Amino acid sequence: MKKLINDPANARREFLAGLALAHADLLAVIQDPVYVVRAGAPVQGKTGVISGGGSGHEPMHAGFVGRGMLDAACPGEVFTSPTPDQIEAATLAVDGGAGVLHIVKNYTGDIMNFEMAAELCQARGVEVRAVVINDDVAVEDSLYTAGRRGVGTTVLAEKICGAAAERGYGLARVAELGERVNRHGRSMGVALTSCTVPAAGRPNFVIGADEIEMGIGIHGEPGRERSALLPAAEVTARMAEAILADLPFTSGDRVIAIVNGMGGTPLMELYLVYAELERILRARGITVARRLVGNYITSLEMAGCSLTLLKADDEMLSMWDDPVVTAGLRWGA
Amino acid sequence: MKKLINDPANARREFLAGLALAHADLLAVIQDPVYVVRAGAPVQGKTGVISGGGSGHEPMHAGFVGRGMLDAACPGEVFTSPTPDQIEAATLAVDGGAGVLHIVKNYTGDIMNFEMAAELCQARGVEVRAVVINDDVAVEDSLYTAGRRGVGTTVLAEKICGAAAERGYGLARVAELGERVNRHGRSMGVALTSCTVPAAGRPNFVIGADEIEMGIGIHGEPGRERSALLPAAEVTARMAEAILADLPFTSGDRVIAIVNGMGGTPLMELYLVYAELERILRARGITVARRLVGNYITSLEMAGCSLTLLKADDEMLSMWDDPVVTAGLRWGA
Repeated sequence: MKKLINDPANARREFLAGLALAHADLLAVIQDPVYVVRAGAPVQGKTGVISGGGSGHEPMHAGFVGRGMLDAACPGEVFTSPTPDQIEAATLAVDGGAGVLHIVKNYTGDIMNFEMAAELCQARGVEVRAVVINDDVAVEDSLYTAGRRGVGTTVLAEKICGAAAERGYGLARVAELGERVNRHGRSMGVALTSCTVPAAGRPNFVIGADEIEMGIGIHGEPGRERSALLPAAEVTARMAEAILADLPFTSGDRVIAIVNGMGGTPLMELYLVYAELERILRARGITVARRLVGNYITSLEMAGCSLTLLKADDEMLSMWDDPVVTAGLRWGA
Repeated sequence: MKKLINDPANARREFLAGLALAHADLLAVIQDPVYVVRAGAPVQGKTGVISGGGSGHEPMHAGFVGRGMLDAACPGEVFTSPTPDQIEAATLAVDGGAGVLHIVKNYTGDIMNFEMAAELCQARGVEVRAVVINDDVAVEDSLYTAGRRGVGTTVLAEKICGAAAERGYGLARVAELGERVNRHGRSMGVALTSCTVPAAGRPNFVIGADEIEMGIGIHGEPGRERSALLPAAEVTARMAEAILADLPFTSGDRVIAIVNGMGGTPLMELYLVYAELERILRARGITVARRLVGNYITSLEMAGCSLTLLKADDEMLSMWDDPVVTAGLRWGA
């Protein structure tokens, strides 16, 4: 295993120490229990928005803490759910009296621990609502998931709910918006290579020199099929078609699109895939109203990419355009 | 070779097509000869600022075209110098009557072709000045370079000169500022893995499973030494000490720091390295006034990182803080 770390047991702590040093204007890191919290939290009267999940998917979630997005993030160990005490502490830290939204990716451990934390917080008088993201069309049920996995739509929900909360929307409205984003978002990924969790020290799965895995999970969970290496046009078309048929997206739709790198994919390739994706969408009368091309929800150093499409309404687009100031996403301020 | 491309011969063209589609508000791509130009160029009366070099280092340079940074970028084929006709066309396209600055990384082919283009432009009445970046302390002379290679300081020079030009500085002042940035910037990198140029189809160099290359070049040029894999603290210290001793940086200095990913390095590791770097600098009385942690000057999918430190004066810091709106760097607007 070749990594720029000191000791696998300390990698999360040391990463977060660096994040805190680099972004002291935006956030603070609490180490026990571990969470990342927006500078100046709690904001009185504002709906809190938090998320969390295993580390190793950066910038998601810790890199999305700041103005206009998340009030806190709860990073678990690499590819491991955060514990209820982390989530409870983060929820209490960001509650400004208006309650807190939990944005939870659909993995069994995450769901269980966020639910447990929500109960603990509610027992202490803090109102909590959860939005579960389950947008991955690749497979039903997976290694760590009943139903569909939660992937790229999480980034969109965090941005859009974060903007709504910043505007003063109450908890119920922010939660409703988050649920609408999830209902209208779909994703699928492809892996070219595996990745290595520091504590494990060996690749998470094995993949041949000429193979790709269509429908990969962000922890390396099996996808739909192993295939021979295909041209980018074909890889993009297969993922896009699975996504488009699933909602379904239809002519006249406006979408927010993400071409997301898994961590080890050159930006050249991601833009090349974006060109293929936009060509496919235009041919179907679908307009890309906004887009992200880059690394947003990664799997350590995995090579590959995922596509996310959100059928966006006016309110979502307006929230998308609001200012955001985080380590991983920044515009308008 | 596993890449999300269609045909190696078209990878640059297809990447740039995607860049143009994704960022039509910021830039346009001209395909023959190839250059990327800021939307609305030329800006009358404004000093033009352009750069260029081989593709495969994205977001540099094409991702830095936009408001407050580059007016144009000339992307060569992967790891290959841009040709004089590309640079000439870009220079003419951005000249608003106030002349054009060429920011050139010190590689023999780049120097030669930028000089040739400058002569062609001057013959057509466009004033051109060049700033050569040669900030890599690892080695004197290299595979493609006489003297020191140009690396991370290029990103800082592009931002700072871009801001000065946006403020209305004339060509001589922008060039003087760029030269000052180069004189006060130092960098060094480390590779954990190799990378594969699409047209070559095999790794650029070979490195053992337990080896790292200290002082790597951004095209895989040999560094100072092969070493066994070391803890991040030791890797960071060796690079930082080489950089600090070279200027030298001393107590009381304020720096702009980059912890730069080579393309295949998880953000967790880059932040962990940043924590090590800031610890080293603090112990020497050096203040990190501004910083970037992420992928800014990459080498395709190479795993590894580079450190850049710029001893910054008030004018540089003020320019750094000015708004920038590009695909790869964005704040303040």
